[in-house]
Amino acid sequence: MSKILPKRSENYSEWYNEIVKRADLAENSAVRGCMVIKPYGYAIWEKMQRALDDMFKETGHQNAYFPLFVPKSFLEKEEGHAAGFAKECAVVTHYRLKADPNEKGKLIVDENSKLEEELIVRPTSEAVIWNTYKTWVQSWRDLPLLINQWANVVRWEMRTRVFLRTAEFLWQEGHTAHATEEEARSETRQMLDVYATFAENFMAMPVIKGAKTETERFAGAVDTLCIEALMQDGKALQSGTSHFLGQNFAKAFDVQFVNKENTLEYVWGTSWGVSTRLMGALVMAHSDDNGLVLPPRLAPIQVVIVPIYRVEEDLQKISERIEPVIKELKAGGISVKYDTDDKYKPGYKFAEYELRGVPVRLGIGMRDLENGTIEVARRDQLSKESRPIEGIANYIKDLLGEIQQNIYQKALKFREQNTFRVDTWEEFQAQIEKGGFILAHWDGTVETEEAIKAETKATIRCIPFDEAEEDGMDVYSGNPSKQRVVFARAY
Amino acid sequence: MSKILPKRSENYSEWYNEIVKRADLAENSAVRGCMVIKPYGYAIWEKMQRALDDMFKETGHQNAYFPLFVPKSFLEKEEGHAAGFAKECAVVTHYRLKADPNEKGKLIVDENSKLEEELIVRPTSEAVIWNTYKTWVQSWRDLPLLINQWANVVRWEMRTRVFLRTAEFLWQEGHTAHATEEEARSETRQMLDVYATFAENFMAMPVIKGAKTETERFAGAVDTLCIEALMQDGKALQSGTSHFLGQNFAKAFDVQFVNKENTLEYVWGTSWGVSTRLMGALVMAHSDDNGLVLPPRLAPIQVVIVPIYRVEEDLQKISERIEPVIKELKAGGISVKYDTDDKYKPGYKFAEYELRGVPVRLGIGMRDLENGTIEVARRDQLSKESRPIEGIANYIKDLLGEIQQNIYQKALKFREQNTFRVDTWEEFQAQIEKGGFILAHWDGTVETEEAIKAETKATIRCIPFDEAEEDGMDVYSGNPSKQRVVFARAY
Repeated sequence: MSKILPKRSENYSEWYNEIVKRADLAENSAVRGCMVIKPYGYAIWEKMQRALDDMFKETGHQNAYFPLFVPKSFLEKEEGHAAGFAKECAVVTHYRLKADPNEKGKLIVDENSKLEEELIVRPTSEAVIWNTYKTWVQSWRDLPLLINQWANVVRWEMRTRVFLRTAEFLWQEGHTAHATEEEARSETRQMLDVYATFAENFMAMPVIKGAKTETERFAGAVDTLCIEALMQDGKALQSGTSHFLGQNFAKAFDVQFVNKENTLEYVWGTSWGVSTRLMGALVMAHSDDNGLVLPPRLAPIQVVIVPIYRVEEDLQKISERIEPVIKELKAGGISVKYDTDDKYKPGYKFAEYELRGVPVRLGIGMRDLENGTIEVARRDQLSKESRPIEGIANYIKDLLGEIQQNIYQKALKFREQNTFRVDTWEEFQAQIEKGGFILAHWDGTVETEEAIKAETKATIRCIPFDEAEEDGMDVYSGNPSKQRVVFARAY
Repeated sequence: MSKILPKRSENYSEWYNEIVKRADLAENSAVRGCMVIKPYGYAIWEKMQRALDDMFKETGHQNAYFPLFVPKSFLEKEEGHAAGFAKECAVVTHYRLKADPNEKGKLIVDENSKLEEELIVRPTSEAVIWNTYKTWVQSWRDLPLLINQWANVVRWEMRTRVFLRTAEFLWQEGHTAHATEEEARSETRQMLDVYATFAENFMAMPVIKGAKTETERFAGAVDTLCIEALMQDGKALQSGTSHFLGQNFAKAFDVQFVNKENTLEYVWGTSWGVSTRLMGALVMAHSDDNGLVLPPRLAPIQVVIVPIYRVEEDLQKISERIEPVIKELKAGGISVKYDTDDKYKPGYKFAEYELRGVPVRLGIGMRDLENGTIEVARRDQLSKESRPIEGIANYIKDLLGEIQQNIYQKALKFREQNTFRVDTWEEFQAQIEKGGFILAHWDGTVETEEAIKAETKATIRCIPFDEAEEDGMDVYSGNPSKQRVVFARAY
């Protein structure tokens, strides 16, 4: 714990890696590209899961579970989908090992156990799920199907990075089926809004909502909507996507229904997901050179109380005074840790909880007992003040709300200061080096999009919903344009 | 819904399959041996998860997540473990597909993507986790590690059956590391007790706690403890296991720690798990010829209210009267569904909710409004009574507790009536055909155990903790024995 973190301004990438490691969130495993999510990191993920799951259920969705394996022939059925995922698949070809006859204690693949058809470890579940929906849907009475799955998926990424890009990751994937295009489009948008609400209200992370361009769309989708957040190094992070699938999967898997007019029609589909990538976003959006900064609504420990004492007898006096406060905080639904572990000194503990982003730290010693005070430290502002212990529980309850707001406002202000309306190519080139969101006109062609990417590594993050139409000229080609889009370099 | 279920007494196996299917719990998928857990089934599993997870956390455990893949060389490290799992492994050998040059639209495995070392889809995670613990444990201060994981696992079973035996299943696996043998043994027992409490208090399913014989032990364990339940066809179902691993995995993965005396020692380990197999146990323990019977504590819908009306105006009157009742029930933490769907008639709905095991069904029509009554139907007893609607919420709250108890008592009574103390081989042979638990003396040898299994298909389910020592003679060999063990045919 004595080692100081790298500074964001000096080595952002190393700073991120060190926070993830030293705040005990996750680590690389011995299995290539796969991570171990450690208990403290997993506790944050569980809070994310609970909040999202509640929102999914409030909007009428139910959870279910579909197989881990996708038969190769299923993946082939939707052409665009197959092309998008074939190159990064973990392929199961055999189902048995046997003792190596040449080396005692070693195992080899039993060639007699070769599968007739290879199985792909799911990179996403459209293929398996639509193949199932085929048997679930006959009539308009069976629609809509509003289903979500919490699962692990595998995409064989060559360059991996904990949380941001891993071969295996955890996620939820919603898969819905509807009778009409309108209903499916409205579901697509509804779930994007759920993601945006979650990002802003729980993660305290402002996001831009918009649509992806054709080149950035999900393989197999007609439209992909997304939320995009800005990290502190000026790079964008796609934080959630919601896809309108049209009738693509219904046609590929022959999912038809008899409508109210007694005619056979193909079903309309959506899918939408967020993943453990959000953990990376959470770290990069708010943390500072002292470590993790957690918004209270996602903090596994919201308040830590550290007693400062020399002898056991003093600890007892402190505990007597603090127990009713702990009780009151817990009754208010606040997660509190009272750290009486005598293996470590208070100074060590202070640094440790700072590193782990605990929003509020309370320190209480013998002098506080005499004065009827307690020290309140805020992680978001790295500030300390002495407060009367009387009424402290209510004060903290309000304070947690204030911290949640403050973290959001800080991120919002950062984004505002780092969003630029750019109208010339020179300005674009200069700005992209400095980072941030660039709002610039685009002529709507793949050619221009690709040329800009090739020259600057900037991609179109989205065509934002909140940007008004205006006449303009494409920043690169000079061709006419009706709307600004969001450019950035991205994770 | 018109089709009648097979009767338990006529075809127990078909009865089980039909309940699972028609109560919408799960179905076989197109992927060999893998199931789809449908929303209603998954909602029960979520209730199980929540209850277990709370109990794990109360006993000091934290959740984490470890990789899906086990490198082949990790599996080899613990010899007994490797031998136990090698024959039923899904093996990933390649990481990419490519377009088939011979057939447009088809994909084939890209032979250039062969992995240097094969990856096994985890059949259980001891190998991956102990390889990680190696880096987490240095000193006695790092112990104990009390970690649980909720995950999917794959065991390539040849004969599968929904919930009971599937190639992929969902489970939790606890993996703990301790400084002393005593502490690890006490953890092993503690978690068995947690499972037994869960089975009895939530699943309403009485279980026998005991230890497995050597032949039935987990591959890599020193001791395996288990809970065994009796199904209605007289077969046993192993419902949870807790393993004392000794230092086997610590030695295989070189996990050592410096103790308080500054000496290097190997760590002591445990692992324990329950799976979606419990869903099968739940179905088979309580259900009847009318369908599923759910204990209230695991029922996704505890109370369903069906309005009986002819015209819309009547429905409004019923709704006005029933809304405050629904509110009161919900405020009491009871999950209620008010089914106003006009696509189906009340009779159809009654049968449907009976099939799905909803513990309490309330029916209310115009005459009830006049009389101030409501019809209360209990699923466990298939009984109906008319009650005053005044005070009905409190009545139902108590009733749910009573139903939970009644289902447990019924299962307990069934087990008592089907547990037999048997002292001769003739009696044993006759009884095993009729089913049930047989308490008989065993001489403690593998030979006798295997001979009995070969002749009768009965296995030793466990050496029960609650059976007093007594002198006796092995029921098969006639050799002296100190204790009766539990024999049964099993799932």
